[in-house]
Amino acid sequence: MRSSASLFRKPASSPIYFTRGVPPSEAIPSEELGVIARSLVDRPTQQLFQYAPSDGYLGDRVLRTAIGEANRVSPDEVFIGNGSLQVLDLLAAILVKPERSTVLVEQPTYDRSIRIFGRHGARVVGVPLQGDGIDTAMLAEQMKRLRAAALYLIPDFQNPAGITTSLAKRRQILDLAAEFDVLVIEDTPYRELRFEGVAQPLFKDIAGRARVVTIGSLSKTLSPGLRIGYAIGSGALMRQLAELATDTYLSPAPICQSIAAECFRAGLVERNIVRVRDLIRPKWAAAIGGASEIFGRDCMCLPQGGYFLGITVNSDLSEPAFIASASTAGVIMTPGSAFFPSEGQPGSGTLFLRLPFHALDPGDFRSGIEILQTILVNGRQRSRAADLEASNGQFTG
Amino acid sequence: MRSSASLFRKPASSPIYFTRGVPPSEAIPSEELGVIARSLVDRPTQQLFQYAPSDGYLGDRVLRTAIGEANRVSPDEVFIGNGSLQVLDLLAAILVKPERSTVLVEQPTYDRSIRIFGRHGARVVGVPLQGDGIDTAMLAEQMKRLRAAALYLIPDFQNPAGITTSLAKRRQILDLAAEFDVLVIEDTPYRELRFEGVAQPLFKDIAGRARVVTIGSLSKTLSPGLRIGYAIGSGALMRQLAELATDTYLSPAPICQSIAAECFRAGLVERNIVRVRDLIRPKWAAAIGGASEIFGRDCMCLPQGGYFLGITVNSDLSEPAFIASASTAGVIMTPGSAFFPSEGQPGSGTLFLRLPFHALDPGDFRSGIEILQTILVNGRQRSRAADLEASNGQFTG
Repeated sequence: MRSSASLFRKPASSPIYFTRGVPPSEAIPSEELGVIARSLVDRPTQQLFQYAPSDGYLGDRVLRTAIGEANRVSPDEVFIGNGSLQVLDLLAAILVKPERSTVLVEQPTYDRSIRIFGRHGARVVGVPLQGDGIDTAMLAEQMKRLRAAALYLIPDFQNPAGITTSLAKRRQILDLAAEFDVLVIEDTPYRELRFEGVAQPLFKDIAGRARVVTIGSLSKTLSPGLRIGYAIGSGALMRQLAELATDTYLSPAPICQSIAAECFRAGLVERNIVRVRDLIRPKWAAAIGGASEIFGRDCMCLPQGGYFLGITVNSDLSEPAFIASASTAGVIMTPGSAFFPSEGQPGSGTLFLRLPFHALDPGDFRSGIEILQTILVNGRQRSRAADLEASNGQFTG
Repeated sequence: MRSSASLFRKPASSPIYFTRGVPPSEAIPSEELGVIARSLVDRPTQQLFQYAPSDGYLGDRVLRTAIGEANRVSPDEVFIGNGSLQVLDLLAAILVKPERSTVLVEQPTYDRSIRIFGRHGARVVGVPLQGDGIDTAMLAEQMKRLRAAALYLIPDFQNPAGITTSLAKRRQILDLAAEFDVLVIEDTPYRELRFEGVAQPLFKDIAGRARVVTIGSLSKTLSPGLRIGYAIGSGALMRQLAELATDTYLSPAPICQSIAAECFRAGLVERNIVRVRDLIRPKWAAAIGGASEIFGRDCMCLPQGGYFLGITVNSDLSEPAFIASASTAGVIMTPGSAFFPSEGQPGSGTLFLRLPFHALDPGDFRSGIEILQTILVNGRQRSRAADLEASNGQFTG
């Protein structure tokens, strides 16, 4: 690695993190949230620090109404939980049953979702993701072969690959789901963060609530710390979620739900979405430009929004060796294999890299991917040198 | 029921609820909580509306320190979750394993705890509760017979029976737990609400953290709406809880944990405990006086604190018939059988009644138990009349 030492940051300088999807602090309107919170705590109601009322386990009525309005559904079709991951956990507990325990997912997909389904006893089966969404031919095969409880998708600016599912594929997927009676779970945390192009309709708006559950979150658009995630689906399923939530954590925190409701009323949610888009757009533009230049366009699909760019590269390095080299060079990575279910790990010779651009200074993003590319190129050179040595050995041996 | 109609409240008047353990609103210091919350939101830190920092998933460091100090343990031996039920849910997910899946509980015990263990795949086995705690002879037998993952106890003012475990039994239980390598979970939500007598030491203070997990809550002493529950135990187990919490709901709500931490610092937690004791003590005194008078002392153990009085009565009515009659007469009951694991349901001819006194006006409590007693007595009279008729029938038939 001698020849490229100058490209490497000294480990003593602060590392570049290509890891979690935490919003940049500037994306959270803390001052305005503080003002709204103050208006509530200045004259606290009796409900603010009490358990939620027993008919409130679906979530604060005002907040449910606001989320319902934003999504053109009735409040009874909304359930609110402590963040969207908790909502998915409750949903998995309800859906995964011994007699119907397979969950189909995009491959790669969000690592924590894979683990949640697994903890609830599911066999998690991945179906490869293509540039316009999941491979629907393979999806059809798997649906024929397996009695799946659900198909879990992140259709907009997918985590980790950045891909958006096309309208044509959304329709195909819904047709398959209807044919094989599989519930579609669409997880949409990044949906509002579109930097170019036009939004595709939600699955729920193509198919109706009976066959689709939409999971949403205020974490990327308003505040992660309020822990507001929600599900939209049939009233019956929402009530099941509420019952299980009551039996798991009794009650949401009224203060968090009240602040969020007040943010909707004051227009802060809408305003902040515009602000966050403007904040991340230049980082996104620099990231897709830099990555195209350095890795070439063939190994990635350019995202139109969200937090992540996903890259598949050939590599002679094993993933642990690659991650360790990156770390030594000051670039901290989440292992790409974590985004693949255990039944569908990437083949040897390829690595999947998730590159979050949303919170990095464009200069740091650029330095980071240059370092990664250098490690990959050096790995190939060393590998070729070793091959050469080995073949020389054969000739002389 | 004609003869006792005058005792019955008209259903149109507001019913008497002998149901959930929700603190009376007066027990929650909403004004003071509002002032404390305002001090935080007036100048919000960047952390207040962000995910908790990644080393903060155990819970806010300041709050962990405060809870640690109040319980004479280090912050590393504290994990904070969204209420104590959520903490128990995470704990059950970690402890219950296919090869060690039995959980022993007091019989009766908190219905939601039975369900939580069951959802995580446990076989829940009840051991009868006596006036001074669980039947330790039967506990020894069950521990010998079954490979239990844990023993779950509510040692202070038990829910639903009101019983406190004696020091002698605490020691015996810990000896058995050591012999059979069973973790003791002591759930202590009511512990601070003692109205007379002297507190017994916590299991953790007799045995040390390696063999005991203590679960606590601020819901009954400060505010349910903040959703602050905690576990105290070995650092290793607390980190396991934190990892699973991260994988389930990512992060607590910093605003709730910050308010709670500030309440400790300002002395509000201690102050409010005294206030809540003074508030509930007269209700407790009236309740145990009235219940002794009406039901007699033989069918109950008088609690020295907490929320509940548990009564076992002979009844010729089935539980559904009893609950329906009570409801018709304006008294809403939680079915007592819910507090018994499915393997240990109460025998026919007896009913278990949980009577929460903490939130009721003493006059309403008195009216409520008079109504219940009337239903029980009428049931016996009707039953005797039916017996007589049946035996007459035999004679004439």
